[in-house]
Amino acid sequence: MPHIALPPEHIGIRGAMSFRPETAKPLNEIVEILLAGPSTLSKGERELIATYVSSRNCTHFCASIHGAIAAAHLGGDEALVKQVKTDFKQAKVSPKLKALLTIAGRVQQDGKLVTAADVDAARNLGATDLEIHDTVLIAAAFCMYNRYVDGLGTVQPDDEALYRERGRMVARNGYVHTSHEYLGKAEEIHS
Amino acid sequence: MPHIALPPEHIGIRGAMSFRPETAKPLNEIVEILLAGPSTLSKGERELIATYVSSRNCTHFCASIHGAIAAAHLGGDEALVKQVKTDFKQAKVSPKLKALLTIAGRVQQDGKLVTAADVDAARNLGATDLEIHDTVLIAAAFCMYNRYVDGLGTVQPDDEALYRERGRMVARNGYVHTSHEYLGKAEEIHS
Repeated sequence: MPHIALPPEHIGIRGAMSFRPETAKPLNEIVEILLAGPSTLSKGERELIATYVSSRNCTHFCASIHGAIAAAHLGGDEALVKQVKTDFKQAKVSPKLKALLTIAGRVQQDGKLVTAADVDAARNLGATDLEIHDTVLIAAAFCMYNRYVDGLGTVQPDDEALYRERGRMVARNGYVHTSHEYLGKAEEIHS
Repeated sequence: MPHIALPPEHIGIRGAMSFRPETAKPLNEIVEILLAGPSTLSKGERELIATYVSSRNCTHFCASIHGAIAAAHLGGDEALVKQVKTDFKQAKVSPKLKALLTIAGRVQQDGKLVTAADVDAARNLGATDLEIHDTVLIAAAFCMYNRYVDGLGTVQPDDEALYRERGRMVARNGYVHTSHEYLGKAEEIHS
């Protein structure tokens, strides 16, 4: 049960965002730019970074929904998403993405743990400064979203099928359309 | 030295924000709403929450600048700011703010650590749902800003007088004016 009176028809971060639309706007814009905006990293790669960080923070809602969006962008490959969560070094992703996931994992713990060697390794595998910047900010931002979702005690359903369905919808329609009309509505999720 | 090519004339988060203006806009809006927008918590109280979280994350730039802004809002009481950083339970702040700082400290570690008892304690001391929401989001957001500043290896000067001067300016002029024209300009900071 949420710690404060969140609108009961919304789950996860949508409950928190419905409570405070003023802050929801910039919070949505950050995700929109970083995960869905123009980038030399694919949407699937960026969602994997968000999923990995959320998984390390043990935030069920964020790890599940972004894992489902990642899988939808990656041709439905849920096994790959699970592998990235548990041991990305063994996953079938590019060496560059592995180097970026290493940086994201450091940021998840503490930004000061990122070393020049981590950054050089990513750069030597082809990462640009913008890709490194966005990796750091995606990881940092999900440390915020995860704490926001958990800290308010939002409702985080267990049903995998629910996240799978929502993930496909976000991958197809984008965040803006989905989040307003569908993503967080409990009555539709359970229908 | 920053991990990527940040504009050298800006320190701390201003360097990171200058590198990527698209994300700087919503990042600035979140701080503007939470710390400087209308609220039943004073600006000094909200800056103390941001300072406390940044201090626990050991992010020198954020802890210093927000500590200086807090002090400026609190009549220049730097000793109070230091007391909140080191042991807020002994600080001369309201019991309600102490209860909110307890919640912020939980969120800084992991949102799941916030208990119903923590929230009840704050509510029994007069905290509203909106104040509890904003405390959770301020704490979560500074877990993002701190990681962003540290994870990119931004320049974080040691000079206390520099932060004091900037803190007074933000307290007087607000974030929007100061951040664009003054806050992060290294050449002015060192003049």
